[in-house]
Amino acid sequence: MPAHLFREIENLKREILTLGAMAETAVRDATCAIENRDEALARRVIDDDIKLDEMEVQIEENCLKTLALHQPVAIDLRFIIAVLKINSDLERVGDLAVNVAERAAFLATQPPVDISFDFQAMARQAQEMLKRSLDSLVNLSAEQARAVLRGDDEIDAMNRRMYLIVQDAIHAHPDQTESLIHLLSASRHLERIADHATNVAEDVIYMIEGVIVRHKAEDYRPQADR
Amino acid sequence: MPAHLFREIENLKREILTLGAMAETAVRDATCAIENRDEALARRVIDDDIKLDEMEVQIEENCLKTLALHQPVAIDLRFIIAVLKINSDLERVGDLAVNVAERAAFLATQPPVDISFDFQAMARQAQEMLKRSLDSLVNLSAEQARAVLRGDDEIDAMNRRMYLIVQDAIHAHPDQTESLIHLLSASRHLERIADHATNVAEDVIYMIEGVIVRHKAEDYRPQADR
Repeated sequence: MPAHLFREIENLKREILTLGAMAETAVRDATCAIENRDEALARRVIDDDIKLDEMEVQIEENCLKTLALHQPVAIDLRFIIAVLKINSDLERVGDLAVNVAERAAFLATQPPVDISFDFQAMARQAQEMLKRSLDSLVNLSAEQARAVLRGDDEIDAMNRRMYLIVQDAIHAHPDQTESLIHLLSASRHLERIADHATNVAEDVIYMIEGVIVRHKAEDYRPQADR
Repeated sequence: MPAHLFREIENLKREILTLGAMAETAVRDATCAIENRDEALARRVIDDDIKLDEMEVQIEENCLKTLALHQPVAIDLRFIIAVLKINSDLERVGDLAVNVAERAAFLATQPPVDISFDFQAMARQAQEMLKRSLDSLVNLSAEQARAVLRGDDEIDAMNRRMYLIVQDAIHAHPDQTESLIHLLSASRHLERIADHATNVAEDVIYMIEGVIVRHKAEDYRPQADR
């Protein structure tokens, strides 16, 4: 690889990991704001989203510059395309963290709701998937990426459980309907954050192996097993 | 432009418009299934999604092949990157149409709910935005694309109104809570479909003008106005 291209790719890797860290922080703070009824923290997540947006635009511009100037091929081309896609996903994770934070800001002003759903367990699962998808990118590990894909069913099941619990809670406490609907929204935002972590993991696998694994359940196994 | 690259780009354009038409059909059928309580139509949308998934993978592979073989620059490079991104958005529109269809399949089995919300008006707005974003791609018209961006606030407002109406309806008819929550979900899926139409329009503007308009409210105006 020419030295210039190598430097650009190292730079892109640094930038996308920075954006990943920013997205992780936003998700963690937004879910903490729900747990601790912390309106100020929620507001900070909302205000800070502009930094993620700026970073996303910068990364996309750098990807395009690198494609135009260096015309990379093979793994380098796949790396840049993967960064372009991961970039969009991380920016949307930031938007979803803002959505969770908006719910947190509202819930902090209302009497606490008491339901038998472990929201924090779901938040941890979403954060864990996001963290692992970024680790798989740092380590260029298709194996770590495949572990992320397997976590997605679990969070979908949590979200479905949340639905049923909220429905029952609305029947039991109709006066808390508004808060319960907001909590349900937050749960769905977490599920979508996990979806984006899954997308990141799929892009990492694609980058490493040159195989598109989307929509193929059987491809969750490592290549050697197929 | 070399003849080979020209042919590849024409082919990509044809493919992405085909995917767009498939996504439009899925959204139209899913919302019709809600309106007409048509479970069979809902099931068809769900079953047909695999065709959109396959088309998405094919388009992505063709984009990457074109990048690797022809190393396009300037507008051609931007075109291919835009197709890559629009491709992801259209595939997700298909997924959201499936989500709406799942709600439709459930609602068809329940007694009808009567709320003062014009769901079909919201469905029409989402479909209109999707159609216009694809028209802006066919016609390579930044002006048409900017009109799509302006429609997004309207659908966000509709979704917020839906929230309030559903909340009141749950208080008035607690026995319909489940159906009402499903209807609220469908409304949010429509809002996300409109978001993806907005993404498509932004990518069309980027392709034509080489300007990233995401996160910049002031850039909704045509360049000449700035």
